[in-house]
Amino acid sequence: MTYCVAIKVDDGLVFAGDTRTSAGVDDVRTYNKLHVIELEDRVFVLLSAGNLATTQAVVANIRRDLDAPVATMSLRLARYMFDAAEYVGSISVRAQHQIASQAQFSNADLRTTFILGGQIRGEEPAIYLVYPEGNCISSSPETPFLQIGESKYGKPILDRVIRPEVQLEDAARCALVSLDSTMRSNISVGPPIDLAILPTDSLKITHKQRFDLDTPFYARLRESWGHQLVAAFRNLPKFDWEAPAEQGSLLKEPNQQAANG
Amino acid sequence: MTYCVAIKVDDGLVFAGDTRTSAGVDDVRTYNKLHVIELEDRVFVLLSAGNLATTQAVVANIRRDLDAPVATMSLRLARYMFDAAEYVGSISVRAQHQIASQAQFSNADLRTTFILGGQIRGEEPAIYLVYPEGNCISSSPETPFLQIGESKYGKPILDRVIRPEVQLEDAARCALVSLDSTMRSNISVGPPIDLAILPTDSLKITHKQRFDLDTPFYARLRESWGHQLVAAFRNLPKFDWEAPAEQGSLLKEPNQQAANG
Repeated sequence: MTYCVAIKVDDGLVFAGDTRTSAGVDDVRTYNKLHVIELEDRVFVLLSAGNLATTQAVVANIRRDLDAPVATMSLRLARYMFDAAEYVGSISVRAQHQIASQAQFSNADLRTTFILGGQIRGEEPAIYLVYPEGNCISSSPETPFLQIGESKYGKPILDRVIRPEVQLEDAARCALVSLDSTMRSNISVGPPIDLAILPTDSLKITHKQRFDLDTPFYARLRESWGHQLVAAFRNLPKFDWEAPAEQGSLLKEPNQQAANG
Repeated sequence: MTYCVAIKVDDGLVFAGDTRTSAGVDDVRTYNKLHVIELEDRVFVLLSAGNLATTQAVVANIRRDLDAPVATMSLRLARYMFDAAEYVGSISVRAQHQIASQAQFSNADLRTTFILGGQIRGEEPAIYLVYPEGNCISSSPETPFLQIGESKYGKPILDRVIRPEVQLEDAARCALVSLDSTMRSNISVGPPIDLAILPTDSLKITHKQRFDLDTPFYARLRESWGHQLVAAFRNLPKFDWEAPAEQGSLLKEPNQQAANG
């Protein structure tokens, strides 16, 4: 499995994904699922979850069309982000059909789901989820993130934190925490984690980094988050029946002693 | 759908579940999924996720066996918690087979998964997950909780917090947070939430409470948790590129002024 997330805040876009792929528990490998395509007036990031061969066919075809002198459509030629997302959808459907027609007697699942995000100069940044069927949806101000793969474990923290006005770096930290929570709860999602940040109107990826469990920043982030969650539990309100009297007396006693002393 | 969780810590057991059932989005109802059976030398709590008719048949049969003068097995007669869990499994399989034989042409999903927890005097408290197939697994010291239904959203917080040495009330708060996270992320899980607490060797449920969104304690818990998570994000380590110089100067300035003053 896989877990990838893309976040759209006012300041820009954040992309993050794990790198574990598995064709059964005895065939686990590390693959990059975060592909960056930077051109002069536009930049795209592609995240993928699903069949690895389909993914690689789609990425290869996208790159081939970029350089093809007679391509009628490519990420270079797309006028709007929506056109780019539909183009990725059509490439994906074609790749699946091509393999399916060669392998009609197999029941391998050829589907791949993509997230395409980025910005074309003069347009707003945008993120799109491209279904295996080739159609797509964008994020919304109410739900300014998109997830693919094992998305449930990491969704609550995104639901609680991510709003359009959240700062870009906070959104990036939230993506890392969301991935960390998923990796702890599901071994099909595994390190290292890839992260890419695209500030609005910069038209280039300002930060692209890979984090392994022992990468100092990521190790500190994990430790800090774990400690703070446990501390947060200590500060939650007590149940009515939880010895408020004793707690009160514990608090009062020093005061009384002080008053008596 | 449903989400229920049972936690076993050294001090006792915690049970929590939502109350939403749905047979399609246009048939959503509220049902109790947390059933308590207190007898003189033992106490059980049953949580359920799955087909509601199967659940009700199982609960009805469990109660009938309790009062039957000639029952060969019942929760009253079980010697060990494992026997009690296997008994619930056998009742569940029988209920599913009975309906399936009457409805062979339907493709309704009759399966229900249960959690049975409790304590029999002289035995350790225990929690068991009873599969629709009738077999069961218990919790372990490494994983001292069991979940049924929509379990993924609420698992990360349990993975991070629940250890055998956690206090009973902290485990209860964690169960509520786990349910709250799930309800925010998935509308098939909904309030009110039922909570039951069984301290080790008490042989009775000391607290059983229903929390709705406007129950004061639960409202405070939700608010406190939300605020603390956002605060925790503010305290996470900064990325290397995040203006450490400026921050440093901000910190240094007052000191320098003090030194100069």
